[in-house]
Amino acid sequence: MSKKLAIIATKGTLDWGYPPFILASTAAALGYEVQIFFTFYGLQLLKKKMDVKVSPLGNPGMPMPMGMDKWFPVIGTAIPGMQSVMTKMMKAKMKSKGVASLEDLRDLCVEADVKIIACQMTVDLFDMNHSEFIDGIEYGGAAMFFEFAGEADISLFV
Amino acid sequence: MSKKLAIIATKGTLDWGYPPFILASTAAALGYEVQIFFTFYGLQLLKKKMDVKVSPLGNPGMPMPMGMDKWFPVIGTAIPGMQSVMTKMMKAKMKSKGVASLEDLRDLCVEADVKIIACQMTVDLFDMNHSEFIDGIEYGGAAMFFEFAGEADISLFV
Amino acid sequence: MSKKLAIIATKGTLDWGYPPFILASTAAALGYEVQIFFTFYGLQLLKKKMDVKVSPLGNPGMPMPMGMDKWFPVIGTAIPGMQSVMTKMMKAKMKSKGVASLEDLRDLCVEADVKIIACQMTVDLFDMNHSEFIDGIEYGGAAMFFEFAGEADISLFV
Repeated sequence: MSKKLAIIATKGTLDWGYPPFILASTAAALGYEVQIFFTFYGLQLLKKKMDVKVSPLGNPGMPMPMGMDKWFPVIGTAIPGMQSVMTKMMKAKMKSKGVASLEDLRDLCVEADVKIIACQMTVDLFDMNHSEFIDGIEYGGAAMFFEFAGEADISLFV
Repeated sequence: MSKKLAIIATKGTLDWGYPPFILASTAAALGYEVQIFFTFYGLQLLKKKMDVKVSPLGNPGMPMPMGMDKWFPVIGTAIPGMQSVMTKMMKAKMKSKGVASLEDLRDLCVEADVKIIACQMTVDLFDMNHSEFIDGIEYGGAAMFFEFAGEADISLFV
Repeated sequence: MSKKLAIIATKGTLDWGYPPFILASTAAALGYEVQIFFTFYGLQLLKKKMDVKVSPLGNPGMPMPMGMDKWFPVIGTAIPGMQSVMTKMMKAKMKSKGVASLEDLRDLCVEADVKIIACQMTVDLFDMNHSEFIDGIEYGGAAMFFEFAGEADISLFV
């Protein structure tokens, strides 16, 4: 019987969107049965048109590309427009390094039969609509997460 | 024998306070034996008078209520007073959607016999006092967490 | 056979650097076999010269030392230089309370035979060099994490 990985994906930023998709696709490639429960801000990662950004604030440990942390101290990251500049630079850097985009990694997970569940409570809370999300996903609550996680070899809250 | 869920709750904000209590109360309702170890900023969630706020900074993925993200770009969230405005709006939204308050969810966990442990090291570090915290909780260290987590079916770091 | 703890350490700040090292060293002291996979911003914690800071932004739940949260509301934490002031105050407070430094806790983990793995993909992405990191660590990918975590009793994403 194959091993099982359960992930709760709760964050909706460009950087924190990577761990769930990288872990899930890697585990699937290793033969794991994988399920991701997207909830809270993590629902952003299931939108058809993903519009996520790097959050420079609150990540002082982030080595910013091209030494920007030297030019712009913390206050700099709060300048209007800086966040989208950072996001573009991060995307360019990742592309130049051959790192797949979040959309590509998400596709990879779907193709690898990673089961994707969106938290219906969060959908309701933020007045979201199922039509905003990619196809082929299920909707459910925390109880659905436990059904799988209770039998999983690894459970991670990301 | 019932399944076991171990949670480490490390964050003390209005938004990140929800996952530990929602997961714990759901699991308890499903028959799990549940234990939460509150440490670091998570200790805020055990105060008798909970005074937690949404952190708009660092959550660019958060769909702000009423399109506020359109009116106030990142810099807006650093305006003095904005944080408490956001917190009030978030609370109002949750209430209007029938989402229980953190206090209610915490009560629910206590009633469902979720075992609550507060990290004594953190209490000492921040000069906190046991009288600030709700009754019926235990105090201990990381070793106490492992005693339970080592036998748990699911362990989550929130 | 000893119990196993697998940790993914993804954050590179003074505050969030503590949980992986505290959990790992405690578990090792309890006889666990422990492995930490450092990835994303977490790689900062493996640098020979660790230069990590507290992130006051995004931690509204943090009880700041000496009532600074009273003097400086949220906006205050974005003042240039405030971050390093906060970092110094946090370090002083921890020292006065007898809390070990991150470097000390890291040494403790190494001495306790905690196996440390650095994510090579992140090293490449941020143009880092192996010479920047402490000795005695291994380099690998997510697959290496699963090799151990798949057999672990506890797996935590920090």
